[in-house]
Amino acid sequence: MASVESKLMKVNIGQSIWKWNDERSLANRRRFDELGLVCVNVLASPGAGKTSVIVRLAEALRGRGQAVGVIEGDVASSIDTERLRSLGFAAEQINTDGGCHLDAAMVGGALDRLGVSGPGFVFVENIGNLICPTQFHLGERLRLVVASAPEGDDKPVKYPGVFETADAVALNKIDLLEHVDFRMDFFTAGVRTANPAAPIFPISARGGQGIEELVAWLLDASR
Amino acid sequence: MASVESKLMKVNIGQSIWKWNDERSLANRRRFDELGLVCVNVLASPGAGKTSVIVRLAEALRGRGQAVGVIEGDVASSIDTERLRSLGFAAEQINTDGGCHLDAAMVGGALDRLGVSGPGFVFVENIGNLICPTQFHLGERLRLVVASAPEGDDKPVKYPGVFETADAVALNKIDLLEHVDFRMDFFTAGVRTANPAAPIFPISARGGQGIEELVAWLLDASR
Repeated sequence: MASVESKLMKVNIGQSIWKWNDERSLANRRRFDELGLVCVNVLASPGAGKTSVIVRLAEALRGRGQAVGVIEGDVASSIDTERLRSLGFAAEQINTDGGCHLDAAMVGGALDRLGVSGPGFVFVENIGNLICPTQFHLGERLRLVVASAPEGDDKPVKYPGVFETADAVALNKIDLLEHVDFRMDFFTAGVRTANPAAPIFPISARGGQGIEELVAWLLDASR
Repeated sequence: MASVESKLMKVNIGQSIWKWNDERSLANRRRFDELGLVCVNVLASPGAGKTSVIVRLAEALRGRGQAVGVIEGDVASSIDTERLRSLGFAAEQINTDGGCHLDAAMVGGALDRLGVSGPGFVFVENIGNLICPTQFHLGERLRLVVASAPEGDDKPVKYPGVFETADAVALNKIDLLEHVDFRMDFFTAGVRTANPAAPIFPISARGGQGIEELVAWLLDASR
C-alpha cells in the first residue's frame, strides 16, 4: 500500500542499520558467553507485564543459585529499574528518548555497567513494541515473547513477525481470562501459524501461576 | 545511551522521512476538508481496544446522521476491516507487511478507495504502537490516544510522546479496573505532565460506558 519510493527507502535504510547492529550483537553474544550469562531478550506490547514477569523469573532463578541481572529499556522513566534494585537485583536503565527499540550497542554499554557474572541470566526488557525490536538482535541466546490475555487472542495473527522469532511465548494475566473475551484455541493457532515450535506458557505474574514451568524451560533451553 | 553514530544516523533519516510525509499529510488534510470529513487518527498499544472503540463511536455517529468511514492499519490480517464491513461501514484495509506505523501516502491511497463523503468522520486505526506513529501526520484533524486499564497506570510516564500529541485520551476497559492494580490519580498525573490540555475519557467499549461523552467531544471539537 505504501508507495514504491517509500518502501525502497525503508528497505535500504533497514538493511544498513541491521548489518551495523548484527556486528555488535555478535560481540555482545561473545561477552555474555565469556561471563557465563544467558541473555534473554523479552519482547511484548506496552503493559503486557514484562517487568512483573521478569521479577518472578529473577526471584525463582536467584532461589536456585543463579546470578541475575536486568537491563531495562524504556522510552522514558526509570521506575522499573528502581523496582528491580529495591528487590536486590543488579539493574541498568536504558532510556531511548523516543527510540522504538533497543539496539546491540545500547545493550553492550549497559552490560559494561551491570557488573554481573555467571552462571546465570541477564534479562533485557525491550521497549514495549511488537514490531520494531523484532529485527534487532541484542546478543541474546533466547527470545521470550510475552502476550497478555486482555490484549486479545488476535495478537499473533496481527503481529506475526515477533511471534515467528520467539523461542518461547508466555501468555500473561491468565487471572483475567474469566473477565475478557479470549479464545485460547484461536491464540494458539495464531502462534502456531507463525511459529510451529515455540512452547506456550500460560502464566500470571500477579498470582505466580505457570512461573515454575517457565523457569524450568529457561534452565533447560539454556543448557 | 545509543552511540552518537547510531543516533545521528536515525535523526538524519527521520527528518528526511518526516518532511516527505508532512507534504502528503497536508494534501490529505485538504482532501478530507473538501469532502466534509473530519479525520481522527487513533493511536494505541496493541490490544488496547482501538477497533472496539471505533465501532462504538461509528455506531453513535451514524445514529446522529453522520457519514462514517474507517481506514484500518495492521501489520498483517484484515479481520478488523471485515468486522467493520459486516456492521455496514465503509472500511479499507492497509497492511504494512511489518511496517510499524501508517504514513500519509498509505492513508491517501485508502481514502481514494473509501468512497465516503461528508458531513462525517473517517477514523484511521493506526498500527498498535505507542512510539513510531507519533511523528507521522496523516492529514488528521484530531488525534485520539486510547490507553486501557490492564496496561497499567504508568503508560503516560513511560511513553510520554504519544500522549503529548493527543487531542483527547480515552482510558478503555474500565470494566476491568476492579480486577487490576491501577491508580487513576497516577495515570491522570502522567497524562497531565505530557499534555496539560487533553480531556481524559474513562470508557468501556465492551459495556458502552463513557462513549456518549466521547462522541459529544468529537462533534464539538470538529466544529
